[in-house]
Amino acid sequence: MGTGQHDASTGTDVDARVVRTRNDVLGTAIDVLIDDGWEAVTQPNIARAAGYSKATVYSHWPDRLDLLRDALARFGSMPHHEPTGDLRADLVAELISFRTALTEHRLDRVLAILAERASAVPEIADIRDRFVSDGERPLRDMLAEVATSDELESATMALCGAVLHPVLMHGEAPSDAAIEQAVDVTLRGLGLNR
Amino acid sequence: MGTGQHDASTGTDVDARVVRTRNDVLGTAIDVLIDDGWEAVTQPNIARAAGYSKATVYSHWPDRLDLLRDALARFGSMPHHEPTGDLRADLVAELISFRTALTEHRLDRVLAILAERASAVPEIADIRDRFVSDGERPLRDMLAEVATSDELESATMALCGAVLHPVLMHGEAPSDAAIEQAVDVTLRGLGLNR
Repeated sequence: MGTGQHDASTGTDVDARVVRTRNDVLGTAIDVLIDDGWEAVTQPNIARAAGYSKATVYSHWPDRLDLLRDALARFGSMPHHEPTGDLRADLVAELISFRTALTEHRLDRVLAILAERASAVPEIADIRDRFVSDGERPLRDMLAEVATSDELESATMALCGAVLHPVLMHGEAPSDAAIEQAVDVTLRGLGLNR
Repeated sequence: MGTGQHDASTGTDVDARVVRTRNDVLGTAIDVLIDDGWEAVTQPNIARAAGYSKATVYSHWPDRLDLLRDALARFGSMPHHEPTGDLRADLVAELISFRTALTEHRLDRVLAILAERASAVPEIADIRDRFVSDGERPLRDMLAEVATSDELESATMALCGAVLHPVLMHGEAPSDAAIEQAVDVTLRGLGLNR
């Protein structure tokens, strides 16, 4: 915050205050999205829920799509598994992190809302594509070490799908054993017998 | 229709007329769901769009969840691939049928709406679970011939996910080659080297 302007009237760095405001508002925007859906993510609603003025929220995000984009970017920076070099263990741990995000941080609901809105609004499709691709990157990078470029895409889709499909389409998170099974089938399928 | 009552005033079988009315209304309900989302699937809206009286629609479906359930049952009876006995070819063809339903019959939008609403409304979760399980059955039955019971679930989820995940989460249908790749990786992973 050393680069921020100092506001003598309050004794705080202006940048620090702005950062705090933005974080408050973006955190609230995700909560409102999860609880009430995309229709509820409007500047006046979010301002009320976060305890800021409408003018403040509009000044940072004149367009509610930017509010969604920034809220997702903040939500998406949740911890991934830190790779150890043991590919099987790393893939299992990354997919378990994904499952935790889906079930405990309500990423399931965020993705369901994005998928639904994206099928109607092209700008939301762009936001979803970016958000999903960023989330998949660690898994894709791990698989890229052992898969040919042809196989990489389908292995990534199959492993993401093995976690997301039961959650979104059956309302049931896969067990650790089911995740291990999916990883083992994929690794054997990629020619890595273990 | 031979068991239907004959209505002398119109010269039609009462049952035949009821069947036609129900089919008209259910087809319209799916169209409205796809075009305007679940909020629009109300008896008055569907009656207007289908050209029937509200009273008629309410008399068949006093509860709009029943209207959704019946509309999905009718939508879900789309053709699946008829198995030939060549497992790889059958799996590929079934997944291509799934892709066609997603992209050409807007099953993508139906599933996205169901996933989104199911995460908020438990009764819709039940309807989604039934609809998805029915749709997956042919694929699951094919895999059951070669997978252990442990492997069956994760192989089914991985193959469904390999088609659905790119469509719902990236807005991109997998190519034939990507589907073949996913099937080959899964079959090799199940110990079927080919």
